[in-house]
Amino acid sequence: MNILKFFQPKDRIFFGLFEQVSDNVEKMGKKLREVVTTPDFAERQTIINQIEQMEHDADELTHQIFLELGKNFITPFDREDIHALASAIDDVADYIHGSAKKINFYKVDPSDFGIQKLAEVIEQGTVALRVAVMELRNMKNMVAITNSLVKINSLENQADDIYDLSIERLFETEPDAKEVIKKREIYQVMELVTDKCEDASNVIESIVVKYA
Amino acid sequence: MNILKFFQPKDRIFFGLFEQVSDNVEKMGKKLREVVTTPDFAERQTIINQIEQMEHDADELTHQIFLELGKNFITPFDREDIHALASAIDDVADYIHGSAKKINFYKVDPSDFGIQKLAEVIEQGTVALRVAVMELRNMKNMVAITNSLVKINSLENQADDIYDLSIERLFETEPDAKEVIKKREIYQVMELVTDKCEDASNVIESIVVKYA
Amino acid sequence: MNILKFFQPKDRIFFGLFEQVSDNVEKMGKKLREVVTTPDFAERQTIINQIEQMEHDADELTHQIFLELGKNFITPFDREDIHALASAIDDVADYIHGSAKKINFYKVDPSDFGIQKLAEVIEQGTVALRVAVMELRNMKNMVAITNSLVKINSLENQADDIYDLSIERLFETEPDAKEVIKKREIYQVMELVTDKCEDASNVIESIVVKYA
Repeated sequence: MNILKFFQPKDRIFFGLFEQVSDNVEKMGKKLREVVTTPDFAERQTIINQIEQMEHDADELTHQIFLELGKNFITPFDREDIHALASAIDDVADYIHGSAKKINFYKVDPSDFGIQKLAEVIEQGTVALRVAVMELRNMKNMVAITNSLVKINSLENQADDIYDLSIERLFETEPDAKEVIKKREIYQVMELVTDKCEDASNVIESIVVKYA
Repeated sequence: MNILKFFQPKDRIFFGLFEQVSDNVEKMGKKLREVVTTPDFAERQTIINQIEQMEHDADELTHQIFLELGKNFITPFDREDIHALASAIDDVADYIHGSAKKINFYKVDPSDFGIQKLAEVIEQGTVALRVAVMELRNMKNMVAITNSLVKINSLENQADDIYDLSIERLFETEPDAKEVIKKREIYQVMELVTDKCEDASNVIESIVVKYA
Repeated sequence: MNILKFFQPKDRIFFGLFEQVSDNVEKMGKKLREVVTTPDFAERQTIINQIEQMEHDADELTHQIFLELGKNFITPFDREDIHALASAIDDVADYIHGSAKKINFYKVDPSDFGIQKLAEVIEQGTVALRVAVMELRNMKNMVAITNSLVKINSLENQADDIYDLSIERLFETEPDAKEVIKKREIYQVMELVTDKCEDASNVIESIVVKYA
């Protein structure tokens, strides 16, 4: 229990928690990029373990947001928006962890074109998401928020195209159906990361529309 | 901004948007049926592109419903029901588009028994969904609403049975595991369309119970 | 319509329905264990049919909870918590039924290590879930609730580990990709049962934090 808590207006707590969790998720995006650019299996595992720890931290922060939501009658945004935003960002963290974990779990070579491209898009998405979340506290820089939301939506579209292209190639070039199953699952989880960034972006948009 | 908006009671906006989107989704159901009955790949692609455009329109309408929900304090139904109904209908549109797209994407022959039967069920489901949504504005014809909801539930059960039968056949008769993966994914998405119709139907039922 | 209903305080209705459905789900957990320990296909089918009937009963109870939620302005917990808890428990019932059904549907031998272990974990999870739900009415035995919630979380982690181990073995030892697809789907649905137990557990935790 932080003593500062008593001197903060209640809604500051929510901003602080959202900022921490989006900061965390941005770091996870960078780490995922590291995972797919690290050729050595064991070195990669070390980074994946770091991502796992960061995912636990994100879980803890999300849990705190839900607990505060239960305790506070007055919230800076609609309760359902806080819940939806926290859930979406937590899903981003979960699926980044899932993407990283499955690469070594399935012993897949991450130099694969689709995995490389999706990791780039995810990294950019988590950067844009953090920018948008950081602006929520003051909502003074509407251009920064809007640009970030547009960026996240464009990245989600890019991820869809990369996914389609990668799956098409996979079915055409990979003769082993078991390999198809593995890589397809990795592409799916990576694509889901960008979907969840977009979900978070849509909640932020609806908050902005109501309160700005 | 439509000037008529100022002369409409606020809740008329919601009815109008729901009517447009369910109308759109019914048209998508018909187009999906066209897709699976068009043997030529390129001709089929033309219809799939039309479905894609209609899916964008549905997205736009859903987005407008959410924006209106953010702006209006007074709504004709519970806010959560409006949100849930709009989400379910949007999912119906998404999965119809997904079903159509995957057929050409995976270069699957749509004359397949399961695909044919599921497309028929989906078409009927979107017709029944539109009828139920159209009655929400006045709620005068309870028989029409109830019949539509019963129909949607029965179609979802039929889709489950067709899915099971098709998967069973697929595993028994298709030697190529990659083909199994492709067709199974198409059956799954098509079956999801009927699940989402049922989700929409359940929301409509709960609205009717509360307000009729 | 039960005449007793008029003499019960409104919130008793919710407790009674939740107790019935969690009781039902606990019985389904036991039956799933029976399914995976019954070597004969036809005998197994008889138990699976019983589970199907129990799943219909759970659906009916969940539906009643939603209808009561629509009718009652005053509820013993936050409306969203009641909705989320009922949905999560209904999902537990659905996925137990799905797990049981898929075993015979895919003609998979349930003596498989992963299936055996997951069924054990699921059975324990449904027992713990029932204990937690039964305590909601009085919230006098906080130790019993807390122990159950901790247990459910630990079981979900165990299920994750069993899932990972089983998938790893499956890809390494099963040469037939079609068999991989079948067993992987069964593991996934079984693991989902424990996820949904955890979802229910998280809702119960948030209720306890607010009202205890």
